[in-house]
Amino acid sequence: MRGVGDDAAVVRSAGKLCVTSVDAIVENVHFRLGENGATPAEVGHRALASALSDLAAMGAQSAEAYLVLGLSPGFTEAQALELVRGALQLAASTGTTLAGGDVVSAPVLTVCVTVVGWAEEEPELVGRDGVRIGDLVGVTGTLGSRPSHPVPRLHEGRALAQAGAHAMIDISDGLATDARHIGERSGVRLEIELEELPLGEGVPGFQVAATTGEDYELCFCVSPEDRGAVEDALRAAGGAQVTWIGHASAGAPGVSFLDARGDEQHLEGFEHRW
Amino acid sequence: MRGVGDDAAVVRSAGKLCVTSVDAIVENVHFRLGENGATPAEVGHRALASALSDLAAMGAQSAEAYLVLGLSPGFTEAQALELVRGALQLAASTGTTLAGGDVVSAPVLTVCVTVVGWAEEEPELVGRDGVRIGDLVGVTGTLGSRPSHPVPRLHEGRALAQAGAHAMIDISDGLATDARHIGERSGVRLEIELEELPLGEGVPGFQVAATTGEDYELCFCVSPEDRGAVEDALRAAGGAQVTWIGHASAGAPGVSFLDARGDEQHLEGFEHRW
Repeated sequence: MRGVGDDAAVVRSAGKLCVTSVDAIVENVHFRLGENGATPAEVGHRALASALSDLAAMGAQSAEAYLVLGLSPGFTEAQALELVRGALQLAASTGTTLAGGDVVSAPVLTVCVTVVGWAEEEPELVGRDGVRIGDLVGVTGTLGSRPSHPVPRLHEGRALAQAGAHAMIDISDGLATDARHIGERSGVRLEIELEELPLGEGVPGFQVAATTGEDYELCFCVSPEDRGAVEDALRAAGGAQVTWIGHASAGAPGVSFLDARGDEQHLEGFEHRW
Repeated sequence: MRGVGDDAAVVRSAGKLCVTSVDAIVENVHFRLGENGATPAEVGHRALASALSDLAAMGAQSAEAYLVLGLSPGFTEAQALELVRGALQLAASTGTTLAGGDVVSAPVLTVCVTVVGWAEEEPELVGRDGVRIGDLVGVTGTLGSRPSHPVPRLHEGRALAQAGAHAMIDISDGLATDARHIGERSGVRLEIELEELPLGEGVPGFQVAATTGEDYELCFCVSPEDRGAVEDALRAAGGAQVTWIGHASAGAPGVSFLDARGDEQHLEGFEHRW
């Protein structure tokens, strides 16, 4: 296939449907170099992980990635290569080909990633709008710890899609925000038991777990009768644990967090990053 | 199709081959707001035009675009919407669907664009590596004037590809640099007659025309016997004029610019933007 060296990359379509997500991370907004493990390699990893996490939430298999680097004056060529190596390592481990890119100058390190996955038919994919009243709400992994080396839940996303998940989202802005997106899009109310949330190591409380972004876990809704099949599918995918944290009701579209007494707690995740 | 509101956009593949280009423009690097006509709408236009120009150079038909906006603290929501309108207007006029995007904070206005085109078979597309000795070198339009409202040569690119162009590139870094890319990739020397270059309005000389970037014209190579067919195809595409500026020789791979006496002039375009 044509690619590096031409004006555009050419790859063979791997399905009738092309699933695309774009994402960017910016120095001093999403990370600070040298803090919280943010080496150049880790920045490359995180930028790609964040974009791949969106494909995971659709149940899509990732195939290609394209990288635009905005390099700041102080960022060396060696650091840029280290960044690309970090992205390449995650690409290799997820079956993703780094198929193209561009480099520009920027005042701070900026990494913009486009990821493409493929599917044959629309029912293979999962959106945010399919929740039915009575569905169970589940999450993968644990919440609140903002892993410094996030791994996108691609296997889990595909397994959940194949097991019949009605809706799915990746928890990038915090469960409180992202679960609300699913509820609003689907016209149902997700009622979540705060104390059922799976706390990450060192996470001081359930409210923190519900409102911390950048977890890269998946929140999903399934029919109660599919519960066993979903647990089996996730185990077979060799992936993260699943925790059932609530259900979908006929209340006002959105989300409620209920404490141990059944009282609603008002929680806000991140609405926008700007 | 799924799209806005889900974690990723889903579009139907429009061909067996997926042609993708990514590009970014950054405030104070590629433009200054308010200078040289750089309104927010124009920035949106230029960002998309620059990416589409890469598809034009492949002979691909554009289909989808994805936009990542990095918004600076002082940039208002109204300005952001104006920027998107500028991109949408060019998208509409080129048959391109704005299928997704993302918004982040950034220290300066940053626009990252991914464009996707489709083709059925590889021979429909043109790279940089197909020049044969004896080929004519042509360019579309005029050079050197850095238009403030560049229009990507999509019609011309497809017409040239269909008329059998052996190689093609868009002139983003200046003819001197971009023609050299074609020569080096193809293993031939492009010998260009400096005084044959079609000067843009107000361009003070041939050397300026050969070294100014951001022209968004196409430079291409064709068999001498296809000259008439290429001119006809470009006329039928309702597009830009074509000017024949040189030919490919068996010299050292690269490019030569010859003045009226046949002496070589040493010219440099932009090598990198960083």
